[in-house]
Amino acid sequence: MKKNNFPKVIVILVEPSGPINLGSIARLCENYGVHQLRLISPKCDPLDPQAKQMALKGKYFLEAAKKSNSLIDAISDCQSVIATCGRIDHDLAIPLYSPEKALEWFFKQSKSENIALVFGREDRGLTNQELQMAQKVITIETESAYPSLNLSHAVGILLHQLYCSNNKVGFESIKIKEGQEIASPKELNDYIEDSRQLLLEIGFLMDHTAESRMQKIKALLQRGEVKAKEISMLRGILHQMRWAIDSRNS
Amino acid sequence: MKKNNFPKVIVILVEPSGPINLGSIARLCENYGVHQLRLISPKCDPLDPQAKQMALKGKYFLEAAKKSNSLIDAISDCQSVIATCGRIDHDLAIPLYSPEKALEWFFKQSKSENIALVFGREDRGLTNQELQMAQKVITIETESAYPSLNLSHAVGILLHQLYCSNNKVGFESIKIKEGQEIASPKELNDYIEDSRQLLLEIGFLMDHTAESRMQKIKALLQRGEVKAKEISMLRGILHQMRWAIDSRNS
Repeated sequence: MKKNNFPKVIVILVEPSGPINLGSIARLCENYGVHQLRLISPKCDPLDPQAKQMALKGKYFLEAAKKSNSLIDAISDCQSVIATCGRIDHDLAIPLYSPEKALEWFFKQSKSENIALVFGREDRGLTNQELQMAQKVITIETESAYPSLNLSHAVGILLHQLYCSNNKVGFESIKIKEGQEIASPKELNDYIEDSRQLLLEIGFLMDHTAESRMQKIKALLQRGEVKAKEISMLRGILHQMRWAIDSRNS
Repeated sequence: MKKNNFPKVIVILVEPSGPINLGSIARLCENYGVHQLRLISPKCDPLDPQAKQMALKGKYFLEAAKKSNSLIDAISDCQSVIATCGRIDHDLAIPLYSPEKALEWFFKQSKSENIALVFGREDRGLTNQELQMAQKVITIETESAYPSLNLSHAVGILLHQLYCSNNKVGFESIKIKEGQEIASPKELNDYIEDSRQLLLEIGFLMDHTAESRMQKIKALLQRGEVKAKEISMLRGILHQMRWAIDSRNS
């Protein structure tokens, strides 16, 4: 029984390895009316007895968990993507938000009917590349010098915050203007891939620098909350650049 | 390393029976700088291997946990006591608060230097008599018809809320690192002018569209708070594009 207006929440775990965590998260999914649990290359069996024991009435989520090998595929149908990051010392210029702030942003989006919450590996979290697939990256601050939360507790805290934010802000909040929708992670990713290709061809990128430089460009576009319309424009530039290079070459 | 002003928190579990929960809670105690873990008539061994495995760096709390047989004794040195209740159909005329509201009350108390958070049995919670020992009773609402949270998740959500309430001002984003200075208006402007020139040459811009399109690109870069270093990188791309076009043209 879902209450009105609660967004369709998709919980995505990247390479989870602990069945106890997996089961605990399935129970949380049931507690908070999550729409679906998705697992990227899980390192343990979702139907492990320990997982089922912890899941209680959330067992269904373990059975129905959708598995895939690629995070970008798993978020392809998600308009809003929030990733979690335990490290506050990452190299990228990605701003880190509190759960409250990131969810405030989510509820201000128009047409954001679904939201993916992405959680990383128990030991290493998400890679920089994975973090960059999200529109917002959150970190859950704690009080001590040992900020590393158990995976399932991070999920629980975020779902609880989503519940609180939804009941505070509702969907009647300020809407973003028509035509100002933020680019989906897939649109951004496709653009970055096409850019990489051209920049390799013209010799701006070398194989060993390509990854880190493209990450920098992506980080900049994400900070700017690049819109779908802007991605179209940037694609137009790319297209014209290619044309200019090819036509003068022929 | 405790931050300033965080209250002395005492987590009290009444008859906990699951070593996995116990260990998870010990880890949370370490995460949130809890002062002490107290156990009333525990039904499992706090030093059970599963408990220690889940506790990680919070193992100390399992070893130092103070056991007693009476809740009233365990709270005798606590100025403020908040109990948790999963049932919303209890018989008593005890008002139930959200975690946020109850903690707001706590922070309004003068001389509230410590706070006890009391959690009940995994299966039955706290008795009415136990609930009545607290000044405030909270319930953690969830989204679905299955509101029964795992014990350790209830502890995690409450500790997180305590942290947030204590640090009311959410942090927008973390500090900007050395070498991450924002580009000066002149740097940004020079880049925009050089881009305009190239985009005109390759036919992406026409004279009558140039101004409005370049404004859009500038707006995107400004929203992203483009860094000086990033402008250098973008200039490198421009330079290499020009070289690719010219060299193939000659």
